[in-house]
Amino acid sequence: MAPVDFGTDPGRYRHLRLEIDGEIARIVIEADEQGGIAPGYELKLNSYDLGVDIELHDAIQRLRFSHPQVRAVVLTSGLDKVFCAGANIRMLAQAGHAQKVNFCKFTNETRNAIEEAGADSGQAYLAAVNGNAAGGGYELALACDEIIMVDDGSASVSLPEVPLLAVLPGTGGLTRLVDKRNVRKDLADVVATRSEGVRAKTALEWGLVDAIAPPSKFGQTVLDRAQAAAARSRRAPGGPGIELTPLDRQVSDEGLRYPNVTAGIDRAAGLVTITVHGPRTEAPASMAGAREQGAAFWPLAATRELDDLILWLRTNETELGTWLIKTSGDAAAVLGHERLLAGAAGQDWLAGEIRHFAKRTLRRLDVTSRSLFALIEPGSCFAGPLLELALACDRQFMLNGQWNGDLAPHASTDPGPATIVLSAANFGAFPMSNGLSRLASRFPGDPGRVAKLEQQAGRPVEAGEALDLGLVTFAPDDLDWDDEIRIACEERASLSPDALTGMEANLRFAGQETPQTKIFGRLTAWQNWVFTRPNASGPKGALRRYGTGQAGVFDRNRA
Amino acid sequence: MAPVDFGTDPGRYRHLRLEIDGEIARIVIEADEQGGIAPGYELKLNSYDLGVDIELHDAIQRLRFSHPQVRAVVLTSGLDKVFCAGANIRMLAQAGHAQKVNFCKFTNETRNAIEEAGADSGQAYLAAVNGNAAGGGYELALACDEIIMVDDGSASVSLPEVPLLAVLPGTGGLTRLVDKRNVRKDLADVVATRSEGVRAKTALEWGLVDAIAPPSKFGQTVLDRAQAAAARSRRAPGGPGIELTPLDRQVSDEGLRYPNVTAGIDRAAGLVTITVHGPRTEAPASMAGAREQGAAFWPLAATRELDDLILWLRTNETELGTWLIKTSGDAAAVLGHERLLAGAAGQDWLAGEIRHFAKRTLRRLDVTSRSLFALIEPGSCFAGPLLELALACDRQFMLNGQWNGDLAPHASTDPGPATIVLSAANFGAFPMSNGLSRLASRFPGDPGRVAKLEQQAGRPVEAGEALDLGLVTFAPDDLDWDDEIRIACEERASLSPDALTGMEANLRFAGQETPQTKIFGRLTAWQNWVFTRPNASGPKGALRRYGTGQAGVFDRNRA
Repeated sequence: MAPVDFGTDPGRYRHLRLEIDGEIARIVIEADEQGGIAPGYELKLNSYDLGVDIELHDAIQRLRFSHPQVRAVVLTSGLDKVFCAGANIRMLAQAGHAQKVNFCKFTNETRNAIEEAGADSGQAYLAAVNGNAAGGGYELALACDEIIMVDDGSASVSLPEVPLLAVLPGTGGLTRLVDKRNVRKDLADVVATRSEGVRAKTALEWGLVDAIAPPSKFGQTVLDRAQAAAARSRRAPGGPGIELTPLDRQVSDEGLRYPNVTAGIDRAAGLVTITVHGPRTEAPASMAGAREQGAAFWPLAATRELDDLILWLRTNETELGTWLIKTSGDAAAVLGHERLLAGAAGQDWLAGEIRHFAKRTLRRLDVTSRSLFALIEPGSCFAGPLLELALACDRQFMLNGQWNGDLAPHASTDPGPATIVLSAANFGAFPMSNGLSRLASRFPGDPGRVAKLEQQAGRPVEAGEALDLGLVTFAPDDLDWDDEIRIACEERASLSPDALTGMEANLRFAGQETPQTKIFGRLTAWQNWVFTRPNASGPKGALRRYGTGQAGVFDRNRA
Repeated sequence: MAPVDFGTDPGRYRHLRLEIDGEIARIVIEADEQGGIAPGYELKLNSYDLGVDIELHDAIQRLRFSHPQVRAVVLTSGLDKVFCAGANIRMLAQAGHAQKVNFCKFTNETRNAIEEAGADSGQAYLAAVNGNAAGGGYELALACDEIIMVDDGSASVSLPEVPLLAVLPGTGGLTRLVDKRNVRKDLADVVATRSEGVRAKTALEWGLVDAIAPPSKFGQTVLDRAQAAAARSRRAPGGPGIELTPLDRQVSDEGLRYPNVTAGIDRAAGLVTITVHGPRTEAPASMAGAREQGAAFWPLAATRELDDLILWLRTNETELGTWLIKTSGDAAAVLGHERLLAGAAGQDWLAGEIRHFAKRTLRRLDVTSRSLFALIEPGSCFAGPLLELALACDRQFMLNGQWNGDLAPHASTDPGPATIVLSAANFGAFPMSNGLSRLASRFPGDPGRVAKLEQQAGRPVEAGEALDLGLVTFAPDDLDWDDEIRIACEERASLSPDALTGMEANLRFAGQETPQTKIFGRLTAWQNWVFTRPNASGPKGALRRYGTGQAGVFDRNRA
């Protein structure tokens, strides 16, 4: 199968229309039945597959960057009597376990991006549920800030996954019912076991939607609420939109190469070495200078490339289980760019958007089911926002001292000893999905320690001190470095990928939980389990048998 | 196979010794290698199976009720150089999926009981790690309030599940490392992937243990710390211990019968109907009167029976997927007993212990993977603490009005309409493992609603009002009752048990999370998933191959 490409643009959409009308945008879903990303199924009733979701992901992103005047987004369907039927069931039934899990993860991230657009960027989403919203279709609405439902005597919202497919509403549905919309658990139980769903009046009464309107008033009600949301928006001002030009991604057997990010692949070892290259120039003096650079502005360009690389590797390279993460370049230039953005955030939408995008990309890394090792070497630039990359990793290896003697394999000139630099960026600017900074989550229950680290901000810290401060795991010297990294990678490659995934998912999120962490931890873990069970995915399982006219056959043992 | 019986007493222990010395008790584990609860494995190196854990569970409970003078408990091993090797691997390898999951759940509950003994009852546990503590052995120590480790140059603490078995340290290990002991995630990653574990000095440095001592000083160090813990204990005073006499449990094809709890089984429908009978007499005037009744005192007796029944059904009746929960008796007598206990708690250890036990039993119900429906009928006594039973359920059905006409199937005399009674017990006395009352978790994000309900305490509430207050899900009248319950049960029985388990686990815990909910939600869910994966449990999986001399063969795809 051809690799999945997450890059697209509105000119190439097959499933969505993106309409802009002043402060209000509309994303209209009208899935091309014949436009599935893989053969074997038709996207009837606005059901979606990864291809539809890639377009949705792209549309959300472009609204933030290319349409800064938009202050509210209406998400609706172009079909009559149908909002969205959720994930395509035949697609799910034919997908392998890793494909299902990966698809659900990206879908969840895209739903979170909808919520974050409202919370962070003053682009609130309103689901205009103009017909049946079933399963993932209702979950898509649940991710919006408001749900307006047509009351036409037939439209329903439903979560039929449990009764029809023997799987969970795993794209946030169960969590968002009780933890976002505060629906009572017993009513949520009824909703999630009633395949025919709930019509408008009961949906409003139970808190499943925010407003209902008869067909004759539906359009105006949606518009009124969208205008009200736009009026409430605190979107920062700034200049015109930035065009998100196509990424320059070169793929070869050896890896991937973008202007600011490279990835070297070692298939035999199951390794990929990712290097983020720092800015080649100093930061512009103001956001006006950043705007002139457009999509080439380093923080935006590097984040786009890294985000694309994460998605590419997660989806297309599932046997590369360990990612080594490096940086290369000038720490001062990294910090200079971050200072520009931090200073302008709040008054300039572009500065805010770039930082929120970096936050989402780091969160994507946090939930990536790969072992992540940071390699902090001489010549690297793990400073401020790039230090977050290292802190997101499962382990941090930092070279103690300088390369000794034979520089050839590592660097052409001696860059001096490896250092890391803490900055304000590490103390809350890029919170994890649990709402904590990566340092707070690294030192759980020890806020005093984090406060002390804050006093070290701005100063290059060498390996010995970084080890003492608890910022790195190991600090071998030049003599031991290659062996120690090699052994760690070989050890990792010898372990069960499933056990590592489960272990990493549990260790990465110390501290408080939020709906997002509940979705990726609790809900997703249960969904992954249910997906593997014969009652869903076995030859007689309900997911496999759906649509055949035969019911699923269940082992009745409760586990 | 004979059903598993969770009842035991120290006279029958095969694996533990319980030693009492004034304020300090010792639980000494010395597993009888030939004493496994099932054939096929030997309990070498203090490895444990369900039988060992049943004894541990019994010992913890008896210390609280029968040895009230105890203020600190030392948990140690009777073997030389070995503390505990964790769950027996051959036992795990030969167990079916439901058995593994059930075993882990009970083990987790028993670990939580250790923590709760310190937090609630002034009986702090100290793990005296006198030799290797591996896997579940170290997880057992992690559940204690303090860990003292011998520094003899060879003893180690380790979590070798991932590297040796391709499963997780799923008995709280990963969660307790980062969320209880605040171990840095990168160090936790090293611990959980290094099969040989960590010796004493590094264990202390990384926060894996609280103190270390050379062999010559180990015993005294443990004793000193136990005495210090006893001195800090705020265990309430009171009279002598209560003997926990053997339960009177009658098992037949039709179900189970205890003096205060009955369970009727309908195998064809996959149903069990549990009825908790209220007190037959008024509450005694004081705790002295309760002491005279001993283990027959209703709140203690009924809780013991319900707890035993939950364990029995969970373990021995895995195909009975729906539990209908009823009560029968006098609400005033229920509330009278609770008033006595609530008034004395804090000054009287027995009153406190009974309520903490009820809290643990309700929590056991919260994590039980069965569909739970409360049936609130005329003649029931869902008041105060027994109302918590209904609130723990996934749905609450309450009969609106009285039985009409033919009373025979339901009651011999007309008890009047069904009512429920809120009391102080429903507003924080029996918190769920998320730290919230069941009402707070029922109305997440709406504390005002809970405060308003508090004003209704003490007053019988009939079905119509209960529905309006959101305390019950449905309130059919006599004409519809039987059909509505039958249809709900048939619907439930038609659904996939796995999907229901996952759904219920996600809906029952709205609101904040705690280490306990993380263990049962996040960690357990991932462990269940890992258990089902071929890399662990397939014919070439590491768990199945352990000890054969052959390494596990892994599918390297990351899911």
